[in-house]
Amino acid sequence: MQKQLLPLIVGLSCACSVLADNALVLQTDFSLKDGAVSAMKGVAFSVDEDLKIFDLTHEIPPYNIWEAAYRLYQTAPYWKKGTVFVSVVDPGVGTDRKSVVLKTKTGHYFVTPDNGTLTLIAENLGIDSIREIDENKNRLPGSEKSYTFHGRDVYAYTGARLASETISFEEVGKKLDNKVLNIPYQKAILEQDTLKGNIPILDIQYGNVWTNINDDLLTKSNIKKGDITCVEIKEGNIVKYSGKMPYVSSFGDVKEGKPLLYLNSLLNVSFALNMDNFSETYKVYSGSDWNVTLHKCQ
Amino acid sequence: MQKQLLPLIVGLSCACSVLADNALVLQTDFSLKDGAVSAMKGVAFSVDEDLKIFDLTHEIPPYNIWEAAYRLYQTAPYWKKGTVFVSVVDPGVGTDRKSVVLKTKTGHYFVTPDNGTLTLIAENLGIDSIREIDENKNRLPGSEKSYTFHGRDVYAYTGARLASETISFEEVGKKLDNKVLNIPYQKAILEQDTLKGNIPILDIQYGNVWTNINDDLLTKSNIKKGDITCVEIKEGNIVKYSGKMPYVSSFGDVKEGKPLLYLNSLLNVSFALNMDNFSETYKVYSGSDWNVTLHKCQ
Amino acid sequence: MQKQLLPLIVGLSCACSVLADNALVLQTDFSLKDGAVSAMKGVAFSVDEDLKIFDLTHEIPPYNIWEAAYRLYQTAPYWKKGTVFVSVVDPGVGTDRKSVVLKTKTGHYFVTPDNGTLTLIAENLGIDSIREIDENKNRLPGSEKSYTFHGRDVYAYTGARLASETISFEEVGKKLDNKVLNIPYQKAILEQDTLKGNIPILDIQYGNVWTNINDDLLTKSNIKKGDITCVEIKEGNIVKYSGKMPYVSSFGDVKEGKPLLYLNSLLNVSFALNMDNFSETYKVYSGSDWNVTLHKCQ
Repeated sequence: MQKQLLPLIVGLSCACSVLADNALVLQTDFSLKDGAVSAMKGVAFSVDEDLKIFDLTHEIPPYNIWEAAYRLYQTAPYWKKGTVFVSVVDPGVGTDRKSVVLKTKTGHYFVTPDNGTLTLIAENLGIDSIREIDENKNRLPGSEKSYTFHGRDVYAYTGARLASETISFEEVGKKLDNKVLNIPYQKAILEQDTLKGNIPILDIQYGNVWTNINDDLLTKSNIKKGDITCVEIKEGNIVKYSGKMPYVSSFGDVKEGKPLLYLNSLLNVSFALNMDNFSETYKVYSGSDWNVTLHKCQ
Repeated sequence: MQKQLLPLIVGLSCACSVLADNALVLQTDFSLKDGAVSAMKGVAFSVDEDLKIFDLTHEIPPYNIWEAAYRLYQTAPYWKKGTVFVSVVDPGVGTDRKSVVLKTKTGHYFVTPDNGTLTLIAENLGIDSIREIDENKNRLPGSEKSYTFHGRDVYAYTGARLASETISFEEVGKKLDNKVLNIPYQKAILEQDTLKGNIPILDIQYGNVWTNINDDLLTKSNIKKGDITCVEIKEGNIVKYSGKMPYVSSFGDVKEGKPLLYLNSLLNVSFALNMDNFSETYKVYSGSDWNVTLHKCQ
Repeated sequence: MQKQLLPLIVGLSCACSVLADNALVLQTDFSLKDGAVSAMKGVAFSVDEDLKIFDLTHEIPPYNIWEAAYRLYQTAPYWKKGTVFVSVVDPGVGTDRKSVVLKTKTGHYFVTPDNGTLTLIAENLGIDSIREIDENKNRLPGSEKSYTFHGRDVYAYTGARLASETISFEEVGKKLDNKVLNIPYQKAILEQDTLKGNIPILDIQYGNVWTNINDDLLTKSNIKKGDITCVEIKEGNIVKYSGKMPYVSSFGDVKEGKPLLYLNSLLNVSFALNMDNFSETYKVYSGSDWNVTLHKCQ
């Protein structure tokens, strides 16, 4: 009886295909102005109609690998184990940079050219293992003639096959050493009572300035809520901002237009003007050569 | 046996993973340039992998609560009963504005700071009841250290739990009085033969000017298709536009570059230039101090 | 028996609701700044909660039918047979342009005003048949009073009903002749050893210049990898660019800032500056009056 019923049940239970429920999350510097991202999604959808496809952002400034690295670092912890990220910011397309999939110790996957994009993910989530994409096996059928759109034909295709468990991680390709190409940048440190760090990114919509100095280091420096801090920001050797601001819990704790030091959503030290734009007001931007020092004012 | 089981199987087998099928619709002023919206979606996806997650817009101008209110009003009627909207335009984050969920008489839910965002929804869809989010119960586990990202840790999390029916509306938190913080604005009225109203918003992509004067009021004013209307637009006390235009069914009814009065997709009186930009041409914008009067020309 | 089978059935039967698994892909010139696209999605979601809804782009320049046509042509081949595209770039809304659904020979559907949007799809994917949307039957119930938002009330609604198989293609409306309104443009040709063609579009994010000259024609012209090509670009009769560049496999084959000829992801001849913006540097843009000639330099 059971034998008789089973095919019937399977027949009825159509579209029951989703054994895996892993999200596929896409990031590029393509913008959404043309059809490139949609073509990537069409390819992913063709691999598995039940795949859950999301966007991280497609507005990474063109060729800005550092920002791609940062956005992955900022976002990945809020996605479940098993989530597959595809990141395509690839100024070196066609050169000998490797196409890889990194599995982190947290169980997230990152499909990307190994061009620095993995710098912060590897450092913060840890490397479980890395595999090089075997393009003979993991490439959209029929795309062999195309030279430049790895984003669609290799990365989106491989990411979708991995997320849908059409292929296992082992089937991506051969195992590589556990190291990625790193972009150098200044780490956050505490020297005596002075905190030093980098400005990796702006909270661009509001013009807030984010550093890589985290709450633990701030605590160690003995700066407490309500303290007035002395902040200096340099681009290379040139001082771009020097001023005082209180460490507060929320923007509303200072008057409109006044500066404040707060912990952003990543729990990193950040600077803002309440209801105004710190970055534009003081011409403070971000990147590996933008540095900050701060201490409790005496 | 087979006969008996079949309806049972069919009954069980449709859509059985998803008990709730409510959409979660997100609106912010974060833009899509960074990872904030993606982190919100990651949190929502973690609550329920089968949740249907959509965007309203993330391009509300920073801190523009009025526009947030307008976009909810413009869009909500086209979404099903049970849809959960999360709107995060929150200049007062960290102040004492309440975090609430409004259930409308139409059965839609709105998760947002109560800072004026609910003005038009409350007025147009009606308040069934309001609950204050109990952040002790409805907050992303582990996020207690974070001070500023309510959008992700409280609003997206609570919205996803409500849409997926992980929690009931009652479990959001304690019931509040049925009133919201309102942004004052001029209502549409008919005085003798003259219509008066406000310009709440532009159709920004095309530069069309939308008023809050609806088709019923237009009908009462005795203006009919083909009539020539005399229109005056003021910012405060300053006249910004004064001119004549016909009331037509479609843009194609006037020549290119000519002005027209039409009913927009919300059935409100609107002004446009056929194939051109009314707003930019005449420097007419929107907001609570932008007013319009119009009547049939004699 | 029932007791034994039940867990089995439940286990198998998850997510079985979807008999149809066709994607609905939306394209407009509305941008994502307001609520228009979200209202379209709300309508589509109301038709079928399990519909897979995607975006092509909503950043077609306002009223630019040619670019709408191009984006469909660029993207459709990467979506499965059965996919329903809704494209709303409709400067003639309210005039007598027909609202149609084109079924291509490849089994894709296109829901759009027949105003030129179908030019390249019809030419490249082939016309299986065309039906005019019967707005008496295929219009969002209750929307009869609205004059201008065909995108939501007719196109999104009809597209969602077609993708979800709520209606068949035949139920769209009466069959029309197998021809669409075409936008004239110069075809790619080989005259002796010189290739002539058009610049239909830019790869706008990077400023690369795409032509309609495909790889087969390039092969016929006897230009091979490594050859130096002489390229002239005109707007109408005015020469805008004249120069030499190698035909290469990838951007990295030339120095930074140097020009190159490559095959883009559609396998069409394209021009770029490695790590720079060809279009901005030489003021070269796209459209029906932008033409190119090229040959192997002697």
